[in-house]
Amino acid sequence: MTYRAPLADMNFALKHGAGLASALQDGLFGDLTMDDVEAVLTEAGRLAGAVIAPLNRVGDRHGAMFKDGVVTTAPGWKEAYQAWRKGGWAGLAAPAEWGGQGLPQAVSAACTEMWNAASMAFGVAAVVHMSAIDAFSAHGSEPLKRAYLGKLASGEWLATMQLTEPQAGSDVGALRTRAERAGDGTYRVTGQKIFITYGEHDLTDNIIHFVLARLPDAPPGTRGISLFLVPKFLLNADSSPGVRNDVRAHAVEEKLGIHASPTCTMILGDRGGATGFLIGGEHAGMACMFTMMNRARLAVALQGVGIAERATQQALAYARQRQQGRTPGMPATQSAPIFDHPDMKRMLLTMRALTQAARSICYTTALAIDRAERSSDDAARKVAHKRASLLTPVAKAFSSDIGIEVASLGVQVHGGMGYIEETGAAQHLRDARITAIYEGTNGIQAIDLVTRKLPLEDGTVVGAFLDELRGIVGAVNATNDPALGLSGVRLSEAVASLARTTDWLLAQLGKDLNLALAGATPYLRLFGMATGGCLLAQQALAALRLNADAAPRVALARFFAENFSVQAAAFERAVVEGGTGVIGADAALASY
Amino acid sequence: MTYRAPLADMNFALKHGAGLASALQDGLFGDLTMDDVEAVLTEAGRLAGAVIAPLNRVGDRHGAMFKDGVVTTAPGWKEAYQAWRKGGWAGLAAPAEWGGQGLPQAVSAACTEMWNAASMAFGVAAVVHMSAIDAFSAHGSEPLKRAYLGKLASGEWLATMQLTEPQAGSDVGALRTRAERAGDGTYRVTGQKIFITYGEHDLTDNIIHFVLARLPDAPPGTRGISLFLVPKFLLNADSSPGVRNDVRAHAVEEKLGIHASPTCTMILGDRGGATGFLIGGEHAGMACMFTMMNRARLAVALQGVGIAERATQQALAYARQRQQGRTPGMPATQSAPIFDHPDMKRMLLTMRALTQAARSICYTTALAIDRAERSSDDAARKVAHKRASLLTPVAKAFSSDIGIEVASLGVQVHGGMGYIEETGAAQHLRDARITAIYEGTNGIQAIDLVTRKLPLEDGTVVGAFLDELRGIVGAVNATNDPALGLSGVRLSEAVASLARTTDWLLAQLGKDLNLALAGATPYLRLFGMATGGCLLAQQALAALRLNADAAPRVALARFFAENFSVQAAAFERAVVEGGTGVIGADAALASY
Repeated sequence: MTYRAPLADMNFALKHGAGLASALQDGLFGDLTMDDVEAVLTEAGRLAGAVIAPLNRVGDRHGAMFKDGVVTTAPGWKEAYQAWRKGGWAGLAAPAEWGGQGLPQAVSAACTEMWNAASMAFGVAAVVHMSAIDAFSAHGSEPLKRAYLGKLASGEWLATMQLTEPQAGSDVGALRTRAERAGDGTYRVTGQKIFITYGEHDLTDNIIHFVLARLPDAPPGTRGISLFLVPKFLLNADSSPGVRNDVRAHAVEEKLGIHASPTCTMILGDRGGATGFLIGGEHAGMACMFTMMNRARLAVALQGVGIAERATQQALAYARQRQQGRTPGMPATQSAPIFDHPDMKRMLLTMRALTQAARSICYTTALAIDRAERSSDDAARKVAHKRASLLTPVAKAFSSDIGIEVASLGVQVHGGMGYIEETGAAQHLRDARITAIYEGTNGIQAIDLVTRKLPLEDGTVVGAFLDELRGIVGAVNATNDPALGLSGVRLSEAVASLARTTDWLLAQLGKDLNLALAGATPYLRLFGMATGGCLLAQQALAALRLNADAAPRVALARFFAENFSVQAAAFERAVVEGGTGVIGADAALASY
Repeated sequence: MTYRAPLADMNFALKHGAGLASALQDGLFGDLTMDDVEAVLTEAGRLAGAVIAPLNRVGDRHGAMFKDGVVTTAPGWKEAYQAWRKGGWAGLAAPAEWGGQGLPQAVSAACTEMWNAASMAFGVAAVVHMSAIDAFSAHGSEPLKRAYLGKLASGEWLATMQLTEPQAGSDVGALRTRAERAGDGTYRVTGQKIFITYGEHDLTDNIIHFVLARLPDAPPGTRGISLFLVPKFLLNADSSPGVRNDVRAHAVEEKLGIHASPTCTMILGDRGGATGFLIGGEHAGMACMFTMMNRARLAVALQGVGIAERATQQALAYARQRQQGRTPGMPATQSAPIFDHPDMKRMLLTMRALTQAARSICYTTALAIDRAERSSDDAARKVAHKRASLLTPVAKAFSSDIGIEVASLGVQVHGGMGYIEETGAAQHLRDARITAIYEGTNGIQAIDLVTRKLPLEDGTVVGAFLDELRGIVGAVNATNDPALGLSGVRLSEAVASLARTTDWLLAQLGKDLNLALAGATPYLRLFGMATGGCLLAQQALAALRLNADAAPRVALARFFAENFSVQAAAFERAVVEGGTGVIGADAALASY
């Protein structure tokens, strides 16, 4: 099998990293048990490993074919999609009242990781679809949900998100797609969208587009954006797909990776206007979009984790099998698996540690969303919502960055074979590279973190999180287990760096915004390195406490703290001291 | 133009970073003047920008075609090669007595950077060819040189290097290709080689293969390797290509990048044995190979610099033109070039600073080779040779790593457009990725640095280099120019980290080799970050002293020191404290 879901790591990260065990105890999910969760994940792992993963390379070779407006997915894609749909995975976290399974977002997160580890080009359809379902559930009107949500939750129809236009990428407010009131409560939508994931395909007999557009009397910028549901086929009275709507794919992009995912240029309304149905009120599209985007951002983070996991598995397998050179003291006539070379071991540990750290950050974020949705008291829901808001950009940027880094290390472990496409290691790198870009570039995430998330509740949201990290550090220091090496002191320094840098940024926001912005990216990395180290240590402590397979978790936590969390001080300097040099360095960029 | 050679930066780095100005003053290159050098580089820049660079995308799309043993290069390739050959670039640093131009290796290095910036798939032919010429010049017999070296130096024929076999990658000593004495002074070579760059092509009417093989009575491992010259066509009495030799391409690999470079599987001797001519004595192939490999390693380093430069130029052009979002205080109706956003500026500065730092390390290494070849007294030549030996693995691994990182940042600057192949940003990343692998993976470079180069002359070779870095740091501190920000103190700390870590590694080598090996990769990165920062500062000081366009160099040096050299302490910890956790972490890798 080219991918085996790392169920033990996932379950442990859910239970003891993200806190699913205590959330279950709190009754957050009714009578759901950890056994139920494990059964769901086992089944998802089976589907991902046995059905989807074997198609990953097929999809890369064949890509999605485009001809005369029709997209044909790669061989096996339809069958895999039907297997996925029939498993009920499309509505995993969707409300039970609409046919969903109502399972925790944290469980859905682990499944999203698996679909994307198996095949990112396949999994990205689920990423978009489930994010759109979340937004639609939250903001759609009852009649509209009655018509569409059930079919979406069952996966009978797939959803798209249509935000980007040629002049409106990171700057969503610059979009020009127009919507006019038709007089019958519907709208006529006209414009061009680009980079639309699964904008057209042959997997389902209807496609439900969620389209951002602007009414004629809309204020400029993001405050004038409205969200519309635009089905590929308008519905007959019996809800079956009827007349073709005025929306079509115009072209499919040739991309670096995720070849099997059709990335479409979409034309709306060149025959008079596509019929659209308003979601969430006129000019209120940004709120809906933020629901969608936040879920999608976490899902993209999980793509990073998934691809990192798969690259790690492949590299480990290769490193155990490939023999080359000798370890110190070995006779000249023998050769060792490259796994045995210390430098190779460092690479493999780096892959494994970064992956598990990012996974832990993502699952923690997902569980915060669950608490925001399900906690019994209002205050707890609000606190959890803010926690999720704080962590979402960190999860997205950190995990997608490490997905790329780990995939690149995977190529390196393979040596020359890694550069040959047949090996498959290079595909992971090509696929992973998009995750740092879409659903808000990682620069946008860093800016969001610094300018919107740090100031939440006057800095007390991030302050409370820092206190939790300090609690973990205290527990590590109290353990005094020599197997944890210098973890305690190094994590303590990392969290102190993060706290000082946070304070400095909060002070800059009202003083010199450019200086704060110049430090956004290294700050987010610092956040990830400190948090990842603490979450791995937390799991190591849990494993020691439970006497449950502690050695690997302790070794991994130690490795991360001693080799990665130690970077915190450098990032602190880059933020606090480095910004002036960035702002003042135009001369260095002017000479071309 | 898609690539414009950065002649001002190159000239400055040569003169004031690498020390070409003082080498010229010392009379190292006869009556060669800096004006001559600049004229050569200007001409190379013209060829690279106007002739080769436009073919980069063509080559990527078409690749090299393979059919029935024949390789057809991409459209335009032959003409570009002829233009390059006629310019005399093939023998730029080759001895004048063999028709070369006898120019400094440092000048050749700058040209190598340009060919590879223009097109890595094209430039890699030059990388291999010129490295082979260097080894052949140094180790070939007079009759063999008379027959082949002139045609190689003129570029009438191209050379290949044939080292790798399926079971012998990093472990060259494991090669199995056999050579038998034919009785007439020639040899019959039989075996299979893989990953042979330009192993077959249609650019020249003969191809001269340099093949490592093993005689029947050879001792095992690297001590039993011999080097053979194996021409594609044996020569007639008049030196024209005659009978086809028993060596052929069997297949061409499908690779992640450098598609236009035919990477061949080669079969030698399936019709009785390819005729080979010994170079440098039986069982003495490793010495020849090391000459070849060291030059090739520096050349690969320059590929990293070249691709980084090209990616930076493309990203800067895009960032100036693409408008998206607003800078603080800008009215909502306007939008700014993304260049103006501080986070984007940090990305662009990172690209520029890493590129110029790597360039400076490479040119410094090249000039050390020149001093090793041309200094008037023996002691100076030996010192310079050791300096080049020390810096070559740093140049190779650091520059190729940053080539990949900078190319990846280039994709990021382009946002969604960066993921579309048409934009060309992704090609740079695909092309660059091989440089960390071939000519000795970067792990091998790090191990070479730690286990072979640090112990040179009981550590006094690296010690003398550290003293030079300290001298630069002293000069920065003495300058007291506020525009340099915290450069002095941060570089001082970085060099101190490097010195402590060096001492620690030297102590480990005789005690616990595995612990030293576990720290090799972060040590090399530390070396690069400290050295790169110092060399940029040195150029900033020179610019201040000469009052020559100082602002950009000062800004770049400051940015590097404050944002990258500050990572030194983290790498020191990873080496000194992190190794135990690496060696002891097998549990963390065992659970798959």
